[in-house]
Amino acid sequence: MSTSVAVRPLPVADVASWDIETDVAVVGFGASGACAAIEAAEAGASVTLFEAGSGSGGASALSGGEIYIGGGTDVQRAAGFEDTVEALETYLKMAGGPGADEAKCKLYASESLNHYDWLKSQGVPYKGTYLPGKIMEPDGDDTLIWSGSEEAWPFRDHAKPAPRGHVIQFMGWGGGRKLVDVLEARVRALGVDVRTDAKVTRLIADADHRIVGLVVRINNEALYVKARKGVVLCTGGFCMNQAMLERYAPQALKCSDPIGENDNGSGILMGMGAGGDAIHMDQFFSTCPWIIPESLVKGIFVNSVGNRFINEDCYHGRVSRTMLDQPGDKVYLLVDNEIFARPIDLARIEIAAVGETWEEVEAELGMASGTLAKTVETFNHYAAKGEDPVFHKHPSWLKPLTEGPFAALELNFKDSYFSFFTLGGLNTLPTGEVLDPGGVVVPGLFAAGRAACGLPRWGAGYSSGMSLADCTFFGRMAGRQAASQ
Amino acid sequence: MSTSVAVRPLPVADVASWDIETDVAVVGFGASGACAAIEAAEAGASVTLFEAGSGSGGASALSGGEIYIGGGTDVQRAAGFEDTVEALETYLKMAGGPGADEAKCKLYASESLNHYDWLKSQGVPYKGTYLPGKIMEPDGDDTLIWSGSEEAWPFRDHAKPAPRGHVIQFMGWGGGRKLVDVLEARVRALGVDVRTDAKVTRLIADADHRIVGLVVRINNEALYVKARKGVVLCTGGFCMNQAMLERYAPQALKCSDPIGENDNGSGILMGMGAGGDAIHMDQFFSTCPWIIPESLVKGIFVNSVGNRFINEDCYHGRVSRTMLDQPGDKVYLLVDNEIFARPIDLARIEIAAVGETWEEVEAELGMASGTLAKTVETFNHYAAKGEDPVFHKHPSWLKPLTEGPFAALELNFKDSYFSFFTLGGLNTLPTGEVLDPGGVVVPGLFAAGRAACGLPRWGAGYSSGMSLADCTFFGRMAGRQAASQ
Repeated sequence: MSTSVAVRPLPVADVASWDIETDVAVVGFGASGACAAIEAAEAGASVTLFEAGSGSGGASALSGGEIYIGGGTDVQRAAGFEDTVEALETYLKMAGGPGADEAKCKLYASESLNHYDWLKSQGVPYKGTYLPGKIMEPDGDDTLIWSGSEEAWPFRDHAKPAPRGHVIQFMGWGGGRKLVDVLEARVRALGVDVRTDAKVTRLIADADHRIVGLVVRINNEALYVKARKGVVLCTGGFCMNQAMLERYAPQALKCSDPIGENDNGSGILMGMGAGGDAIHMDQFFSTCPWIIPESLVKGIFVNSVGNRFINEDCYHGRVSRTMLDQPGDKVYLLVDNEIFARPIDLARIEIAAVGETWEEVEAELGMASGTLAKTVETFNHYAAKGEDPVFHKHPSWLKPLTEGPFAALELNFKDSYFSFFTLGGLNTLPTGEVLDPGGVVVPGLFAAGRAACGLPRWGAGYSSGMSLADCTFFGRMAGRQAASQ
Repeated sequence: MSTSVAVRPLPVADVASWDIETDVAVVGFGASGACAAIEAAEAGASVTLFEAGSGSGGASALSGGEIYIGGGTDVQRAAGFEDTVEALETYLKMAGGPGADEAKCKLYASESLNHYDWLKSQGVPYKGTYLPGKIMEPDGDDTLIWSGSEEAWPFRDHAKPAPRGHVIQFMGWGGGRKLVDVLEARVRALGVDVRTDAKVTRLIADADHRIVGLVVRINNEALYVKARKGVVLCTGGFCMNQAMLERYAPQALKCSDPIGENDNGSGILMGMGAGGDAIHMDQFFSTCPWIIPESLVKGIFVNSVGNRFINEDCYHGRVSRTMLDQPGDKVYLLVDNEIFARPIDLARIEIAAVGETWEEVEAELGMASGTLAKTVETFNHYAAKGEDPVFHKHPSWLKPLTEGPFAALELNFKDSYFSFFTLGGLNTLPTGEVLDPGGVVVPGLFAAGRAACGLPRWGAGYSSGMSLADCTFFGRMAGRQAASQ
């Protein structure tokens, strides 16, 4: 998918006349854009929202509609969990990795409960029930799930664990569509001027580099839009732009399935062209849904040379992302007969070898003797005592793999279902203001969601619901800030 | 070290008068800048070279003065190696990793012999002798060394191995200073106007975004420099800019020692501000000089959980870079009494454990039983047969670690000498023309060396001499192209 945007802003001097005038122009109608539009409209600004597709959605609508919220919600408390702002903040910082944005983590943690109330006040329904276990998304319409690595080492040693994935009430997977529908209803109720099939192709800047509008193609015509207070880029990431992946995140090309609708990086490119700084562009979330059925979590992963590489009870995305750093192009999930189950079809995980002994499995995989089998032997030795001194898997997921026959399930980066989306984007203040590489605000330009680099910015730390938390909360911040100009 | 450059170019309309006028302005007097200036001057352009420091040097002068050259040089042939352009190109592409720049690899491979002649014609002396073995830099003044992973798996399976590190004739380490001296002599002989203690703080652009000059501080005064044909940024990387490392390459912060003189990223920032695209900004070279004495290469590395992770006969930088991807903050080099030697002081590598058995070493390191010891057992089993089916270490470096007592040497990312420099930079054509994020040339702007993203752009593929090859050759290309405007 090509972007076909002009990277450099159009000089306002080249605009003969304005076709549309608005206070705040929002680009992109996923969750970020919707929330930015709602806040800007509620602040009294006139808002026009442009969406390249024929309706709202974006990558948000492809999600589970799960939002990472903590600090002690009604649902957390009802389920018996005592979460705190401090624990949430600590977890967010760890999850943000070596480049975590401390200001955003701190603000989001302190505002998380208020944000949850805000979401409910917009009409987002939550059933209020807790669903234990390791799952991707609820099969029913439950609310609260463990959606990250909270109970896994090393996170559990630093931040008191609590489940924080809050899922919109919706039967089955895919509640993200409903989430965007609810937000869209609010957008429309507030009188936002929504333009669909409206592809923003260029920003417009004045001589002082202030962004004062944009060019949009509607019905094959270029329209010039004046945005008196600012432009908010909510255009998503760049997982569907091959050239950008090659330049900034080539490791993501190992993955088979981008999660995106129109995530071609257009907003990031236009933002860069306007002077914005794009950061952590190498980072991406990825996962293969290998944790279904849950018994598979009791298996152990080995890489192509037979070594374990992580505690398998971490969030499935963290485990999957770490797989991509291993030598070779595949890893194996080792299971015994007691926990064996066929992974869901979606995952495209195949059985690579079976054997009555682990030595047989090792040989069938073509591995050197004394590699995989020794790894299992050591794991079993300690697991029998409820210990994992090597990778600190939680005792509740430990069992020796001693009930033959044994199997190795193959997760192959190209053939299995490795989905991904990018985490790098425009550097923003918590207000959504875009910064240039010198740390100076680009006036009139705002970004949120995956067009920005937000709370989630480290593939190995991502947790489900973190991107939607970032999209919805910092989309709001950006809309509010734009309206205040 | 702060940069204190203005990221946005100064509009030329704001320039009252020019203090200096030149055809080509070169920024930075390392090897790239010198070569750019030489070519531009030889093409008939007037050239002014600005260096922030008090003399030539840059990171180039801190190097070994070794240049990656192949395709069949006189020295390669005299030493009995048949290298080809094809093998060189293949190796360069593999070394460039998943984001390799095929056009640059192809051009450099085909021009490598001519470039070698050019270097000699500038006065760079080569003794013409071959020094076998695994070394960092020659202790004497020999020319040709193995400076990469050519003989190591998987490179050897794809590109016919040949030594390609060509070191300037200079007694001992640090020939890079002499290399820059030789190039400086040529620069001055050609009448280039060299300004030292001259810090470029801003580019100057016209209304069409063409770079037409720069602002330089000399004697505490801002001077306005008109560059009629273009500005060539040869300002180096950003290993000494903490804020840039945090935004773009946080993993490099694991390393203790930046290799740079004034590598604060100023040129990259100004280039980005001028519209240039910075790519592969997460990538960096790193190494710890653990291969001295060479017998240590016969040891094996294990990470903090006792697993091997690479064939130890790869280039020391590839091995070191891979260490940083391992869990924890240290790795161990396991050696037996036969190969034990104390690493050079510079490396700051300490003995972490000794034992009469590998089980003792494992226990002394606090590792779970059945981890390190089993890794060694498997390694020894195959090494006794001259095989390494796990990581494919070349048989000439294989020996079972069976002569007790045994030791584990600790390479600790913070306390050992892990040097590094960055590989990401401005995206350029082989001509040195800087591209914007949309792939469009920024007129009047050129970059070379580590201010650009060149041949070396993948930490795990770096080989000694590759950065200087890139600096000198593509510095020339940029200078020539600028002069031709």
